[in-house]
Amino acid sequence: MRESSKRIIEDLASKVNQRLSELLIVKHPERFYEAVRWLPLAGGKRLRPIIALTVGKMLGGNEEDIMPFALALELTHNFTLVHDDIIDEDEFRRGVKTVHVAFDIPTAIIAGDTLFAMAYREFSKLNVSEDALREILRDFSDMIIELAEGEYEDVEFEKRNDVTTEEYIEMIRKKTARMMQTACYGAALIVTGSTESAKKLGNYGLYVGLAFQIQDDILGLIGDSKITGKPVGSDIRKGKKTILIIHALNNSDANTAKRLLEILNKPEKTDKDVKEATEIIKRAGSIEYAKDLALKYANDALKALEGTPENEYKYLLEDLAYYVVERIK
Amino acid sequence: MRESSKRIIEDLASKVNQRLSELLIVKHPERFYEAVRWLPLAGGKRLRPIIALTVGKMLGGNEEDIMPFALALELTHNFTLVHDDIIDEDEFRRGVKTVHVAFDIPTAIIAGDTLFAMAYREFSKLNVSEDALREILRDFSDMIIELAEGEYEDVEFEKRNDVTTEEYIEMIRKKTARMMQTACYGAALIVTGSTESAKKLGNYGLYVGLAFQIQDDILGLIGDSKITGKPVGSDIRKGKKTILIIHALNNSDANTAKRLLEILNKPEKTDKDVKEATEIIKRAGSIEYAKDLALKYANDALKALEGTPENEYKYLLEDLAYYVVERIK
Repeated sequence: MRESSKRIIEDLASKVNQRLSELLIVKHPERFYEAVRWLPLAGGKRLRPIIALTVGKMLGGNEEDIMPFALALELTHNFTLVHDDIIDEDEFRRGVKTVHVAFDIPTAIIAGDTLFAMAYREFSKLNVSEDALREILRDFSDMIIELAEGEYEDVEFEKRNDVTTEEYIEMIRKKTARMMQTACYGAALIVTGSTESAKKLGNYGLYVGLAFQIQDDILGLIGDSKITGKPVGSDIRKGKKTILIIHALNNSDANTAKRLLEILNKPEKTDKDVKEATEIIKRAGSIEYAKDLALKYANDALKALEGTPENEYKYLLEDLAYYVVERIK
Repeated sequence: MRESSKRIIEDLASKVNQRLSELLIVKHPERFYEAVRWLPLAGGKRLRPIIALTVGKMLGGNEEDIMPFALALELTHNFTLVHDDIIDEDEFRRGVKTVHVAFDIPTAIIAGDTLFAMAYREFSKLNVSEDALREILRDFSDMIIELAEGEYEDVEFEKRNDVTTEEYIEMIRKKTARMMQTACYGAALIVTGSTESAKKLGNYGLYVGLAFQIQDDILGLIGDSKITGKPVGSDIRKGKKTILIIHALNNSDANTAKRLLEILNKPEKTDKDVKEATEIIKRAGSIEYAKDLALKYANDALKALEGTPENEYKYLLEDLAYYVVERIK
């Protein structure tokens, strides 16, 4: 990644962090607001607001004009994580206990709802035309509905043995890529007021998001658990139907595929099970397949940037498309 | 209630029901959308959208201009019920199983989130100035944040023995009255574009909401369970600190108050416990006290209507202020 890109990312992340800590103050009832701010102030890459701010600045926009939208993205991302962690029964995130573990499930449900409402509250600060504001509200709300569909399908796929590649791609489009698409689309709409140019930049976000999630699946299998913070083979342990699993099932002989499903469907997997499943996936060439697919999406993302202004913000977006597929955490 | 009021209520409820069934169609993934529509299509008084539409029509507004806002209120109300039922572990509502019982907790969490996003999606259809749209977004989001605070406090109060009348009124203001305030405020803002006149009508909703919740507490104690659909003494069984309990604790001798707390804090209450607690509350004069307070708020609501146009919609709002304190279900 270019030095200028690193510098901009650091600068924008720090501004987003500053604004989040101003928004997420503790007031009465104190324990409730401690729960609301728990996850958003525990860290995070701030990838979505950074992408939105960078797209806006690339197009000549003013940082302050885009900031409420960028904060809405990060608040919404955190709201979905708080609820997803209850659903997936995850106990740790960003190195701290998840909200429902540190507090309790009822508090985590309404803390998530509060982050959600705080996100929409940011839209009341947007200085755009009524048409643009309506379109941003429509797109953002559709995004959250698709996120919910994607989360539902992700859980449902764990119980199914016949998930297709197409179903998987559609699920990660909704669960991960859609929010990055909205980040770019909304930021461009705020700056240009044109839905047409915004749609093109939305595609950048969409493809970066797809590449990001596939790399996430790769790291979930062969990532260094000391670096990723996730247990070795965590997706296998959960029985997640990732692109690697789906590819391996379709590219192994019948007996090997049957054995892989057998392991995935065990209620409790031993370290030996995880190792055996990982070997099957590697032998099927699924890691290379997933890497190629992630790279293809990264290239699609770059293509969506064609014709946009040449400046250091554009270079950052280019760097980011490759960063998401090269990252090790 | 006047015949014209009954007719208008029936007409508006039927239109709201029609629009909700058009919004809440079943699409892929089917089981997920069955969960999303489960509660909103299971019935309900549609009180919030009816109040909003009536306020708007009283002020000369067009029904279709207010409808997206009215639907947003009903969707939001249902979203909070779906999440509250998980939190309160309630198993039945509107004569059917609650969403987390009919489906499961993960599905109920994201079905609620989806209703929430669908509510905000309605705002993208509002045909108002950008200033009005921003103000409606701000007020609506603040309302949801206060609803969440109120729900948190309601649960927290169950564990406390020293809840004051002021704390209780503030809690029901946030949990119940605030949404009725927003219903009137937003509808008036859509029609008049003036925050000043909207604030006055917001007060009507606020006071009707306070009266409504106090009557709810009275019905929760002495209501006919065959008519209310709630078990006899349900609030006592849950250990809820309602206005009746708080008044009885402050207006009984020390030993009687101690005994009342003892019963409320029992993990399991027998029918005999419920009967004894009810007797203590009756002897303390708490029912008359609560009835007087509800009536006082109903009168405050009427006062907030002064100076508004005289028409059958205004008469409906007047009737409604008394209906909420006279209702038996």
